[in-house]
Amino acid sequence: MAFDENVKTEFKVVGTRVKRPDGIDKVTGRALYGADFNAPGMLVGRILRSPHAHARIVSIDTSEAEKLPGVKAIVTSADLADPEDDFFRDIRDNCLARDKVLYDGHAVAAVAATSRSAAKAAARAIKIEYEKLPHVTDVDEAMKPDAPVVQAGRSDESVPEGLSENVTSYFEFGHGDLDAGFAKADKIIERSFKTAATHQGYIEPHACLATMGSDGRGDLWCCTQGQYFVRTICSEVCGIEATQLRVTASEIGGGFGGKTTCFIEPVALALSKKSGRPVKIVMSREEVFRATGPTVSSSSDVKIGMTKDGRITAATAKLRYQGGAFPCGTVEFGAQSAFAAYDLEAVRSYGWNVLTNRPKEAAYRAPGAPMAIYAVESVVDELCQELGLDPLDVRLKNAARKGTLASYGPTFNDIGLVATLEAAQAHPHYAAPLGENQARGLSCGFWFNFGGNTCVSLNVNHDGTVGVVEGNPDIGGSRASISMMAAEELGIPYEKVRTVITDTNSLGYNDVTDGSRVTFAVGLATIEAARAAKREMCKRAAQIWGIDEEAVVWEDGAARPSGPNAGEHPPMSLADIAAVMDQTGGPIAGHHEVNADGAGVSFGVHLVDVEVDKETGSTKVLRYTVFQDAGKAVHPDYVEGQMQGGAVQGIGWALNEEYIYGEDGRLQNPGFLDYRVPVASDLPAIEPVILEIPNPGHPYGVRGVGETSIVPPLAAISNAVSRAAGVRMTELPMSPPRVLKALSGG
Amino acid sequence: MAFDENVKTEFKVVGTRVKRPDGIDKVTGRALYGADFNAPGMLVGRILRSPHAHARIVSIDTSEAEKLPGVKAIVTSADLADPEDDFFRDIRDNCLARDKVLYDGHAVAAVAATSRSAAKAAARAIKIEYEKLPHVTDVDEAMKPDAPVVQAGRSDESVPEGLSENVTSYFEFGHGDLDAGFAKADKIIERSFKTAATHQGYIEPHACLATMGSDGRGDLWCCTQGQYFVRTICSEVCGIEATQLRVTASEIGGGFGGKTTCFIEPVALALSKKSGRPVKIVMSREEVFRATGPTVSSSSDVKIGMTKDGRITAATAKLRYQGGAFPCGTVEFGAQSAFAAYDLEAVRSYGWNVLTNRPKEAAYRAPGAPMAIYAVESVVDELCQELGLDPLDVRLKNAARKGTLASYGPTFNDIGLVATLEAAQAHPHYAAPLGENQARGLSCGFWFNFGGNTCVSLNVNHDGTVGVVEGNPDIGGSRASISMMAAEELGIPYEKVRTVITDTNSLGYNDVTDGSRVTFAVGLATIEAARAAKREMCKRAAQIWGIDEEAVVWEDGAARPSGPNAGEHPPMSLADIAAVMDQTGGPIAGHHEVNADGAGVSFGVHLVDVEVDKETGSTKVLRYTVFQDAGKAVHPDYVEGQMQGGAVQGIGWALNEEYIYGEDGRLQNPGFLDYRVPVASDLPAIEPVILEIPNPGHPYGVRGVGETSIVPPLAAISNAVSRAAGVRMTELPMSPPRVLKALSGG
Repeated sequence: MAFDENVKTEFKVVGTRVKRPDGIDKVTGRALYGADFNAPGMLVGRILRSPHAHARIVSIDTSEAEKLPGVKAIVTSADLADPEDDFFRDIRDNCLARDKVLYDGHAVAAVAATSRSAAKAAARAIKIEYEKLPHVTDVDEAMKPDAPVVQAGRSDESVPEGLSENVTSYFEFGHGDLDAGFAKADKIIERSFKTAATHQGYIEPHACLATMGSDGRGDLWCCTQGQYFVRTICSEVCGIEATQLRVTASEIGGGFGGKTTCFIEPVALALSKKSGRPVKIVMSREEVFRATGPTVSSSSDVKIGMTKDGRITAATAKLRYQGGAFPCGTVEFGAQSAFAAYDLEAVRSYGWNVLTNRPKEAAYRAPGAPMAIYAVESVVDELCQELGLDPLDVRLKNAARKGTLASYGPTFNDIGLVATLEAAQAHPHYAAPLGENQARGLSCGFWFNFGGNTCVSLNVNHDGTVGVVEGNPDIGGSRASISMMAAEELGIPYEKVRTVITDTNSLGYNDVTDGSRVTFAVGLATIEAARAAKREMCKRAAQIWGIDEEAVVWEDGAARPSGPNAGEHPPMSLADIAAVMDQTGGPIAGHHEVNADGAGVSFGVHLVDVEVDKETGSTKVLRYTVFQDAGKAVHPDYVEGQMQGGAVQGIGWALNEEYIYGEDGRLQNPGFLDYRVPVASDLPAIEPVILEIPNPGHPYGVRGVGETSIVPPLAAISNAVSRAAGVRMTELPMSPPRVLKALSGG
Repeated sequence: MAFDENVKTEFKVVGTRVKRPDGIDKVTGRALYGADFNAPGMLVGRILRSPHAHARIVSIDTSEAEKLPGVKAIVTSADLADPEDDFFRDIRDNCLARDKVLYDGHAVAAVAATSRSAAKAAARAIKIEYEKLPHVTDVDEAMKPDAPVVQAGRSDESVPEGLSENVTSYFEFGHGDLDAGFAKADKIIERSFKTAATHQGYIEPHACLATMGSDGRGDLWCCTQGQYFVRTICSEVCGIEATQLRVTASEIGGGFGGKTTCFIEPVALALSKKSGRPVKIVMSREEVFRATGPTVSSSSDVKIGMTKDGRITAATAKLRYQGGAFPCGTVEFGAQSAFAAYDLEAVRSYGWNVLTNRPKEAAYRAPGAPMAIYAVESVVDELCQELGLDPLDVRLKNAARKGTLASYGPTFNDIGLVATLEAAQAHPHYAAPLGENQARGLSCGFWFNFGGNTCVSLNVNHDGTVGVVEGNPDIGGSRASISMMAAEELGIPYEKVRTVITDTNSLGYNDVTDGSRVTFAVGLATIEAARAAKREMCKRAAQIWGIDEEAVVWEDGAARPSGPNAGEHPPMSLADIAAVMDQTGGPIAGHHEVNADGAGVSFGVHLVDVEVDKETGSTKVLRYTVFQDAGKAVHPDYVEGQMQGGAVQGIGWALNEEYIYGEDGRLQNPGFLDYRVPVASDLPAIEPVILEIPNPGHPYGVRGVGETSIVPPLAAISNAVSRAAGVRMTELPMSPPRVLKALSGG
């Protein structure tokens, strides 16, 4: 295969498995997480939450609570600012409810006190009078015309007339003549699916330490995927200018998208401002479940027509996502990605975002894609089964490739789907024998990958070491991969580079660590910053040698005279030039700021073998293989970790995880005892197979790898369970009771 | 006067008295100082110190101490690395003694334990066997051939043969024919002087929190004037590479030069590495006095010849400085600055650095200059008195000015000495009547001012605010002045800019905050970074307007089409361009790295009136006026504060402050009760008079202002006391016993 010639393909550092820079810190407990920051005179912040799914706040009386010993401040929504933009008003109202509480666990007031017990007593002493309102937590129920209205007047202009006010936005993508397409099909299957809301399940609960003076100048340490976005949110919600708030991200104990917004930070700042003291808030696990952002739950209808030789002739998907009590846009990604793996002549996807009395959804790894692709890949599998076709053959026959007009608009460049499918087909797993009650499932997966605003500075130290400064919390090994790319570009050993993540006021704006953007975009900016530093080092060498700047090149980690001057002077390494930089003009640095585009899309294929116990309805995952295109795998260990981690989260989503709401609209399982994530003993070793189809939009061909891997497990396992159980499963999670129900024809 | 036309002289923000950005933080206690950082699992570090002035360490037995409960690590010099360079070996050996203890209070071992009491008990349980050695603490004694040798073999090649091994370096500056000069004199005075060691007296003792993993990767929070230099020192002394250690400077409770090196930081890192836990060390006041870096004490001989009309014909100064138990270079600055205020045909200064059994000196505001200039200005004053000449007339007659060949080598550019002298002459203070036992003294002062390695980044935020990132701890208001220069250059209000001081790994290398370099060099780099950002903003505007980059200029805080395109598009302000920067390429920044030169020298003249109580020997300062050239006073409040603060420290030095060593070589007054700094009730309001003679080496004409002000008080007060008492004083401090002794002819 011939790839873009501007993309580097020979590497010394990139592609090796160097030591993790944060490994020892994390294993020994030296790493500082969100709750590990302290300041003298610090108060404990505590949030009082709604016990109702939906209620009007008639009154809040804090007078008794204020009199309690140790209580230094109490805040409600009235203590927050009034942002112009709905987006920020929603975050504000999610941080502290205004007028109405919209879900069980919705924050209403917060206290700061000198001890945990004092804060607890004060929270108990706040008197809130509620007027209960009818509630709705299911997406299909919420779309009914007579459903309780969660928030009125929030539908945007995209929403067709006549729908419930709970529908906030509507999307439609696709092309071609559907009627003509379906007419060509030998078999058409149309099915409806449901998926439950799941939580990212990060180990570290949200935590922050805030200080804000009476001058509105603040400092915030918190656990987040994006300190700059936290700054933007807090400055809007607290009514201060961005530059006045310095936000430092802690080490992060998991995020997966769930730490891309704010729940407690503006509250802590408001408490700090009011009390004049630093305030720390650390969420409990129960608070994390009740009041942070799980993924959407969904309801969908998919219809696909296929010829008997396996060509898809037409396809439609109708997706209904509930994203909790505030408008969200996730269904757009679902509708865009539903058919991304296919080269189709007639395709249409439709999406509705719907309000319910649940916590506002947050991003969760490839947000919106897993549930859409689950439904599509389930129907494709059923068609293969019905038509007696090999499911990999069918995917290959219909696979999107370079030049395909994607169902959501763009035309694909170099993509790795076919290579990934072929790798799966050639893998021993695909041919391995199966036993009784066992079956194999497979699914494709897709994610866009993003670029976005990125700033990197690279500094050369006197001793020949190099510091890279970036602004994106490391959620999946980016410090290693960024250091590796810097070392590769400069021609120095990896060990000579340390990459640090700095605070909002020490580097220009960076978008959130999300969309699998960091290795791509920060890597790209790092390579450009290293190139700028190399130019400066060539200039210094030219100055030392007394020759023209243009007559110096950087090769193999050293400045060298070139052209007619070649060999005239011995090469000067980075360390040589660094040692004398004070005498040649001062510090040497490279900088790059960019709103990066060119993040290549990513495809994966998962194969899974399961065994279904028909007596108990329980499913055992026997073997699992992940095939995924990484563009270029900068640090293969981390890439494999992403592939395995996404698969595990997808397995949990497919088999066990769900938010369970009672009739009263209250969450019934806000804890890891009742919300069951897969643990090591539930899982086989997950085998990762990395494909490398260079992304022409990155100098080293890098693509994002972090999200695609959560997309295929839902359908792969559902297809395997359906085949093993002999009954088509259409609802997640496929927990034992639900499998038993399906087996009994329910 | 016509100054360099490249220097800006009209300002909107610079020169105003804007609100201090750190004022509220410091007043309300929100500011975080060195001891305010904490980490989970943190241990208390404690240092065990020598009770002897000079002794061989025969053995250190830590076995009992290690067994005590709560003790997690004990370190000695053996736990530190072996730097190649003497400079770093000396710092290492000052942090923890190797083989010998060299002064009372010299650190020998350190413990880290789970509580203060456990650390204390462990320190007591360490058994050290010493073999006492003879000691010397006075500079003149130490130069005698038979003096105890503090460290053998430390003299450099500059030292003439035949001197004591305690003399470590020798300097000589000057020009012209001395014999011919002295021959032309009508009056020659030669006198010897002594000054005592004084301490900077910063309120905040040294404090740090260190963490270092078994991988040698460390983080350090500390109170320092230079986090980069701390990094360099600690990486040398702990044997790690610079990039592996991230140093963050806290807010600083005074430094004045005393926080430009390390005493506890490498020890804390070594304890942390050994214990695997974060370690905090906070010095007591006694430790600060005994074992940090006071200024040198000195002994000098000055000889000056003058004609009867007040022209100096020749001058020499011999300066002997003891800098404690390790080689120091301070006398070089003394020898260079001694005669800097004078335009002389024949001049010579000589300097000897000498070892004694005292703590290693550290920089203290204009290091080396006050004691040299004290001696020179005392003799000049005595000559004026003897010849019946007006001391200001004489200084004006001999004053250095543009074109003067300075006694230390360079030829002066625009300097402010004459303007300063003229301002003093014209000031009502100079003509004010004096009462009985009262007299007026004056002195010139000088400091070089430095430039040095400097990196600044400037980031434009989406909301039109601007962040400046610099790497120099703010010891005198630099955050305000840097923000002001950025605002001035960008044409936006001061309030829209926040300057932060970042850690070593978030910005390129910066030299220490010393040499009055920050407002000059960081200001210069900030202006250049702002200019780079303006160029980028013009480019973005050109892109939006679809015109050539060259056709856009930045004027009055906005990009505007120029030339033939003028007026074609409405101007775009920084906020306008920032709001859409995501769509025009991404974040906007400006960066500048430079080893700055062109820091203009600084002169000051102080006038003081004193009254001497001849019965008690006590001196009361009645009136004090400081005249000083600031180049351009960016924030006049801070400039005045520097002028007042330096004067106060100089007054303490002149009248009361001194390190008192007993016969046993132990410090007798390690505390503020016995080491007496001037307090408010000792002082009159000090009137500052700012002169502004632009420095042609800075785009806004800025000069350093922080150090010159400590130089004149020593001689000014000595001259006043000498005239009031009727006896020439030649030793500092002029404490009541010493004045009484002089009055009685002793």
